[in-house]
Order: sequence, then structure tokens, then C-alpha cells
Amino acid sequence: MELPVLEQILGANDQIALDNRELLRAHGVVAVNVMASPGAGKTSLILRTIEALQGRRRVGVVEGDLAGRVDADKVAETGTPVVQINTGGGCHLDAPQVRWALEQLPLDRIDLLLIENVGNLVCPTGFALGEQVKVVVASVPEGHDKPVKYPGIFAVADGLVLNKVDLAPYIDFDAGAFRTAVRALNTGAPLFEVSCKTGEGIAAWAAWLEGLHS
Amino acid sequence: MELPVLEQILGANDQIALDNRELLRAHGVVAVNVMASPGAGKTSLILRTIEALQGRRRVGVVEGDLAGRVDADKVAETGTPVVQINTGGGCHLDAPQVRWALEQLPLDRIDLLLIENVGNLVCPTGFALGEQVKVVVASVPEGHDKPVKYPGIFAVADGLVLNKVDLAPYIDFDAGAFRTAVRALNTGAPLFEVSCKTGEGIAAWAAWLEGLHS
Repeated sequence: MELPVLEQILGANDQIALDNRELLRAHGVVAVNVMASPGAGKTSLILRTIEALQGRRRVGVVEGDLAGRVDADKVAETGTPVVQINTGGGCHLDAPQVRWALEQLPLDRIDLLLIENVGNLVCPTGFALGEQVKVVVASVPEGHDKPVKYPGIFAVADGLVLNKVDLAPYIDFDAGAFRTAVRALNTGAPLFEVSCKTGEGIAAWAAWLEGLHS
Repeated sequence: MELPVLEQILGANDQIALDNRELLRAHGVVAVNVMASPGAGKTSLILRTIEALQGRRRVGVVEGDLAGRVDADKVAETGTPVVQINTGGGCHLDAPQVRWALEQLPLDRIDLLLIENVGNLVCPTGFALGEQVKVVVASVPEGHDKPVKYPGIFAVADGLVLNKVDLAPYIDFDAGAFRTAVRALNTGAPLFEVSCKTGEGIAAWAAWLEGLHS
């Protein structure tokens, strides 16, 4: 009896995700679902992106966390419109939560909406939010074997970011093995190697985002 | 209709977890459920622990991953009995999976069973496996705010490890803020600050494990 219930939930989620997509398109907003492990640097990437696109794209942000509003406060300090979703223990964002967030945001004054999912390389994979593209952020300290161990999320990504490349000298990270593992799962998504600490690689990532149209 | 189904699954899981616990106790095995984000260093900690307890405790290992057997191969190279569980997309280990693993292991020749859960700071929290203690491994590159963002798993931990302290000089990690956030959620669990790269702090962690009795 479990599977039919799960399918029903997914079905309802997908319908609301389609509605979200329509709402975003009507307002000319490109939405990006940013997924990663806890601590891979999703919020740092969002802050760098806001900075890089200053005067070029009007950014809005949705922050998803189990609890707290640490990330939303950091984003709000930049003057960017932001909504915090607390899942209260839920392991991923879902489309109804994002729908609620969209209702709080000034969509007519946003070109690019960055949706930071809950830190988790498994559960967010199966839940559409209404986004145009899915991005997975990996980071050097997590190790080059993450695509092998969490293949599903790397397979569905439209864009990939490898963050914290500034730490490479201090860590046994095999960049070639990482790229090979990624390409075994996903041949089409661009891979941006960046450091949110130094700013390395951020320009190319921001230029890719600029090229997306709703 | 969702909640009753979930409760039924949890109920069945808890019953099998109790059976696992009895089986482990009958064989004098202490079992540790090792939980962490992807890439926090669970496998490295297990390898360091095997090394530190050489000749003092006979270690066995269960490796949980969505796919692959990268970690199990690393453990097997040390001559330690190991079983790989592939969850095939499942976001945490459950008691029936561990039951199956226990049936493959030489329990009479194991004192300490280290069960590496799927890399995830959310979903493993609610699923007992039959372990005696739950351990959460955090790591410096993940940032000091992880307890604030993932409170549930830090609250249930019986032991806490902060790994990758060798990277502290290169990262903006506020150790005081991390400890304060941990202690707001969990006053009793010992916190071991270690580096699996350099071996720092491993002796104290291994000594704590040695003090556990089934």
C-alpha cells in the first residue's frame, strides 16, 4: 500500500510544480533549484552570484532549511528579496512550499530566482519545484567519489558547480576522477569549477545563468 | 492517509531494530550507527578506527550507499569483515537492511560493528538500526552552522566527531560557535575533534569506543 500513496504525493507535487513554472514564466522569471550536500557552499554561491550579476539581473532568493533563518539573514543583508522556508524536519523542498514562497516575493521585480534546497544529495532529486534548471553544487572537501555514491542527483543536473577549489592543495581530491564520474552520468551539463572564497570561476558561472531565458 | 502508513513503517522498523539489538547483544557486539553529510569523512574515520583498535577490538563494518562499493572495497583491503548495502536510491539505512547485513557477518568474531549510514543529515535520524550508540560526524569545511540548520540529528547523537580540523587554517570556521550550537541541542554527548588525515584526536575517539560495552 506504500507505493500508491507515494505516487499520489508525487503526482500532486508535479501538478503544483507545473503551476509554479507557469507563474514564473508569466513574470519572466528564470528559477534555479540549487541542490547540494550540507555545507557545500550553496549560500556562499548565491551571495557571489548576487554580487556578480549586480546591475545585470535582478535576483530573488528562496532559502530552504529544516530550521532557522541563518541563510536568509545573510541574503537579506545584500538588499535582495528573500523568503525563508523552514521544512520543520522535511528533507527536501516541495512545490507547495515554493508556491507559498512565490506568493511572498515581488516577482515583477525579479529576473533570476535562486532556490536553495535543503542540504541533501538524495531526497531533493525526485521533487520538481517549478524550476527551469536544476544545479548540483559539489565541493572539493567532499571528495571526488560523490558522483559514484549519489548518482541520481548528478544525472538530473542541468548545471554542475565544483566549489572550494581553493582547498585543492590541502586535500587528496582527484579532479580527473571527479570529471570522469560526472561525465559517466551526465554528458550535457556544464561544469563550473569555482571558489566562493576567492571568486575564481564565478564569472563563467554567472555568464551561464545570464544566458538562461524563462 | 499518509501519517498512518508512515507510522506503520516506523513501527515495523523499530521492531526489527530491537531484534537486531538482541542479536548483537547475544554475540557481545557493540554497534555504532555512523551518520554524517556526504563527504564528512565517515569512511576515513572508520579506517582510522580500525587502525587505532588493532589488537584491542575486532572490528566489523557495514557500508551503506545508494550505489557502488567504493567504501566497502577500502575497508576490505584492511582485512576487516565488511558488508555493502546498496539502498538503490533510499536516503537512509533501515533495520531490515542491517538485519540482512548481520546475517552475512561473522558476529562471533566481531567486538565492534561500525555501521556507515547513507550520507544525509536528515533522514537517518528517525530510523533505529539496532545500534547501541548513534554518532554524528561533522567536518570543518561544512561550516560551524550545521547544528543550527540540522538540529534533529545533532540532538539524538550519543557521540559527536568534528573531522578535518587540519583544514581549520584555510577555512572561516568558528569552533566556539560550533560548540555552542552543539551544546544548545545536546549536553551529554562527548565531542571529539579529529583529523583523519593527520591522525590528531583519533586516540581519544578510539578510547571512547573501547569503553562501550554491549
